[in-house]
Amino acid sequence: MTDHAINLRDKLARFTEHWSPRVIAEMNDYQFKLVKLQGEFVWHAHADTDEVFIVLEGALTLQFRDKAVPLAAGEMYVVPKGVEHRPVAGQECSVMLVEPRGVVNTGDAGGAYTAQNDVWV
Amino acid sequence: MTDHAINLRDKLARFTEHWSPRVIAEMNDYQFKLVKLQGEFVWHAHADTDEVFIVLEGALTLQFRDKAVPLAAGEMYVVPKGVEHRPVAGQECSVMLVEPRGVVNTGDAGGAYTAQNDVWV
Repeated sequence: MTDHAINLRDKLARFTEHWSPRVIAEMNDYQFKLVKLQGEFVWHAHADTDEVFIVLEGALTLQFRDKAVPLAAGEMYVVPKGVEHRPVAGQECSVMLVEPRGVVNTGDAGGAYTAQNDVWV
Repeated sequence: MTDHAINLRDKLARFTEHWSPRVIAEMNDYQFKLVKLQGEFVWHAHADTDEVFIVLEGALTLQFRDKAVPLAAGEMYVVPKGVEHRPVAGQECSVMLVEPRGVVNTGDAGGAYTAQNDVWV
């Protein structure tokens, strides 16, 4: 049982890589991950789970095949399971993801952006 | 499928009651809730689930039987399932809770602070 608060800013300061989620906490079989985004990610979907984006710093756009949802710091969005999406961020953006343990960042798409899973910071 | 970002500040502005969680989003069978705290809550535990506290504004202390964990804005903590805890906030504090749908705020304790469940804002 952790004895101290998890400070999001402190955790963000510990890594610089983009598109490389770092786990900061677990709740039951779910994980809270921090990720820094910049540029255009790959189109992908997660067949088995919703995925939550909470923007901590900066802004991004969640592109869907039929729309685009802009998200700024202090805003969140739930990407429904099975729905293709692509995060795009002109400037660096820091996000907290919430999703079940084991979810891979590129979902069904794979490819060069696929990050090692379950890396803690 | 929601078409817009969920803005945490806007949602917080829509209610004033303390100790009365409001659901703002669902991910699979989990809910994200906002709650405003002030004063001392009841000691309670949730036998079946962990519970996440993410502080959005202000500060609180999570009291446990064997320790106290101070939490400020930008900090989070996972209360393990079955562990007695009590949030205490001298000044008003705004928190996002993450837990499975159906969790009652007072857990096993019941009493006057027990809020209606599944109220959205």
